[in-house]
Amino acid sequence: MKKSSSNLDRRYFLKASALSGAFLGILPGSLYANDKEYIKEKLENGLEPGPARGETIQGLTVNPIEQVRVAFIGVGNRGSSHVRRMAALSPKAKIVAICDIREEKAKASAEFMKKQGQKVDIYSGKEEAWKEMVKRDDIDLVLISTPWEDHAPMAIYSMQQGKHVACEVPVACTLEECWKLVDTAEQTRRNCMMLENVCYGDEELWILRMVQEGIFGTLTYAEAAYIHHMTAGLFDDKYYEKWRIGHHVTTNGNLYPTHGLGPVAQYMGIGRGDRFDHIVSMSSLQASLSEFSKTVDPGNPYYNRTDFAHGDMNNALIKTHKGRSILMQHDVVTPRPYSRINALAGTKAYHEGYPSRLSLNNGSHDWLPEDEYNEMREKFKHPIWDELKDEIAKNNGHGGMDFVMTYRMIDAFNKGLPLDMDVYDGVDWSVVTPLSATSVELGSIPVKFPDFTRNHWESKRVLEILK
Amino acid sequence: MKKSSSNLDRRYFLKASALSGAFLGILPGSLYANDKEYIKEKLENGLEPGPARGETIQGLTVNPIEQVRVAFIGVGNRGSSHVRRMAALSPKAKIVAICDIREEKAKASAEFMKKQGQKVDIYSGKEEAWKEMVKRDDIDLVLISTPWEDHAPMAIYSMQQGKHVACEVPVACTLEECWKLVDTAEQTRRNCMMLENVCYGDEELWILRMVQEGIFGTLTYAEAAYIHHMTAGLFDDKYYEKWRIGHHVTTNGNLYPTHGLGPVAQYMGIGRGDRFDHIVSMSSLQASLSEFSKTVDPGNPYYNRTDFAHGDMNNALIKTHKGRSILMQHDVVTPRPYSRINALAGTKAYHEGYPSRLSLNNGSHDWLPEDEYNEMREKFKHPIWDELKDEIAKNNGHGGMDFVMTYRMIDAFNKGLPLDMDVYDGVDWSVVTPLSATSVELGSIPVKFPDFTRNHWESKRVLEILK
Repeated sequence: MKKSSSNLDRRYFLKASALSGAFLGILPGSLYANDKEYIKEKLENGLEPGPARGETIQGLTVNPIEQVRVAFIGVGNRGSSHVRRMAALSPKAKIVAICDIREEKAKASAEFMKKQGQKVDIYSGKEEAWKEMVKRDDIDLVLISTPWEDHAPMAIYSMQQGKHVACEVPVACTLEECWKLVDTAEQTRRNCMMLENVCYGDEELWILRMVQEGIFGTLTYAEAAYIHHMTAGLFDDKYYEKWRIGHHVTTNGNLYPTHGLGPVAQYMGIGRGDRFDHIVSMSSLQASLSEFSKTVDPGNPYYNRTDFAHGDMNNALIKTHKGRSILMQHDVVTPRPYSRINALAGTKAYHEGYPSRLSLNNGSHDWLPEDEYNEMREKFKHPIWDELKDEIAKNNGHGGMDFVMTYRMIDAFNKGLPLDMDVYDGVDWSVVTPLSATSVELGSIPVKFPDFTRNHWESKRVLEILK
Repeated sequence: MKKSSSNLDRRYFLKASALSGAFLGILPGSLYANDKEYIKEKLENGLEPGPARGETIQGLTVNPIEQVRVAFIGVGNRGSSHVRRMAALSPKAKIVAICDIREEKAKASAEFMKKQGQKVDIYSGKEEAWKEMVKRDDIDLVLISTPWEDHAPMAIYSMQQGKHVACEVPVACTLEECWKLVDTAEQTRRNCMMLENVCYGDEELWILRMVQEGIFGTLTYAEAAYIHHMTAGLFDDKYYEKWRIGHHVTTNGNLYPTHGLGPVAQYMGIGRGDRFDHIVSMSSLQASLSEFSKTVDPGNPYYNRTDFAHGDMNNALIKTHKGRSILMQHDVVTPRPYSRINALAGTKAYHEGYPSRLSLNNGSHDWLPEDEYNEMREKFKHPIWDELKDEIAKNNGHGGMDFVMTYRMIDAFNKGLPLDMDVYDGVDWSVVTPLSATSVELGSIPVKFPDFTRNHWESKRVLEILK
């Protein structure tokens, strides 16, 4: 190894046709080598930005909104819990209207609000009922908790109607949607915050503060995951019309990257001094869903299927502009306990979650003993977890992170401050799905990230939550 | 994603120059795109086998050797412990001669043998003293525990002198060495067993037996690692002339793959029905060694250096012919506890080490409680750990795995049985270093594995240790 790729600045770009076909013949990517245009489109389309429709909205502020008027699209499992937390923030926020394609779901949430002494309007009964609601002129914020594939179209339309958007993860499923979200947000100058609740976890905010205080030294590496055994759930009606398992038929990549990646991206200052440069991804054999599909009711549309594209475990490796790397995992079918890993490595410390453990460069080569760990935990605890202690206890949701997130968002609107997360964060984290799928499809070749900030990623802005 | 690469049989190979330069221009591999010949050589050289010099030696047996006459090259930290364990096997084995370039090391081991009532010959004092020893005609087996870069040349020479070889890990550092080892072993019909002690761990043999009994269902995925914080040790004289840190200057890849990969390869039957197909690798930022180098004695040749090529964490992903995948990690500089991960995923079970935990597809979504774990551990325990219990207690070394390995090897020679691991295993596991380094150097592009078995990998031989 005389040459080294460690210095990313020494990059020479390709002269056309500099490489022979023989070079590619031995790559797994040669799978589709006969379909040159297809590969070219896969790798180049969406990489370069089109003409901007507006200025960057990094650090966007809008006039303070004393009481944020909120409308909900989708009040199923997830959306109905958002309704409850938003109701708890009254009078900082007020729920105006609720839409769900399943009338019984919309009614159930309206009924809950009625018990709080508040009447809300219901929209339902047809595919586009949500558009009627979003068009109203008495709404400040639209909160979207629908199937993944509906997120971006609903978010884009809502911004076009002048509304701010809070959207469940992932905010987009395709590269094209990512650009449309950015362009629309910049054009309309509306907030589009992806509801990445994990960024508000007490463990995650603690690590973020330790990073800020230099405890980790030079950051080098991180691991993020969504490991959640939900095989049986994918086949039942927990998800409206079984929308979730459909993605396992169409897409072989990291289907659900943001819960693990969001916090890690914040530790590393992605979009705030560093950015994702490229990704490679590899999936394992698909076996669990096809085996399980033999055991479900023969009336189930996914009974006895063998056409699941998604490998049981997807791994993806991201390299950042600064040379750091991130390992990402997605596995929702292997019988194993839940984990987001939440690992962070620096020259002075290492953290790993599930359960949370910390080691410091103190010569011990072992995890910190419990008392020293607790000391660190106390010392760098994010103050918001103390401030909101009572409300968190009353409004639980994923251990409190959901309430902290909702509170921070509404509070920023009330005060006219920038939100914690912007449209660039949402698309940077969500775009891992289509990019990893492209890499897998083409035999694990590296795929570049687009720069959704259009060269504004170098600005070393401090995260709002650290101010 | 309309097309899927999950079906590995649907592979179309490249027609020359089917792809445009534009396709490669956006790959990080474009780094060296101007040096076409260099890339071509990197990716193609050593991929196809040359003419075989002999038949396959899979399952090789030689005439029983009642007392195996052993000579040692290298009796430093590792080699001297091998001497002690070999001595304990007397009269099944007899130590005849010992070589070390440092005379005091050779003398110390000879002194130890003298106390056992046995005189051994010493070779030292010049670079090639080991060759004189190996040429003797009263040696059956040469055991090599020298710096990594000396392993393959010493193993090849020893086989050429008609000796069987037991060689410390890795058995080779380059692709060329891997082929030379295979070709020489096939030509001379000598055993060349890499001393991958971890394959004999009680945890690893337990998992291997569970795999054999179908507990994991369909295997899909595994994780292997060498995570061992040894920064300070790399700078001191634990390693003769600091040979180990030299690899961190020259090579950016997985420097030490076999301890993690060996057991995982055995779980998956690599070389026995499946084989490694391709690998992609990515390293993180290098920071720990350069930071630490500022703190060492200014007389140290590695004082204040910034030319360490090896990123702090190297990740590599291997895809097998059957579509399974393996994640491999190498990090010896981050302040964190030791781990080889030792994870194995199947449709019916999942295991992870550090500490060892097992989950089964029983609907609980949690690790097995302690009593059920212990029950599984007892039920599928490999009998050799009971059989050798007393000897293991007397001859400890990495918790006993070293003794079990040495015993199994000598016992096979005594009985004229095939050894547990053959030359193909050793090179399959060791070649990860040069292949991962090539992938990293060329921007994480996928790199093919050569088939060292020359098409004999499909034979579904049962591992000797499972018979």
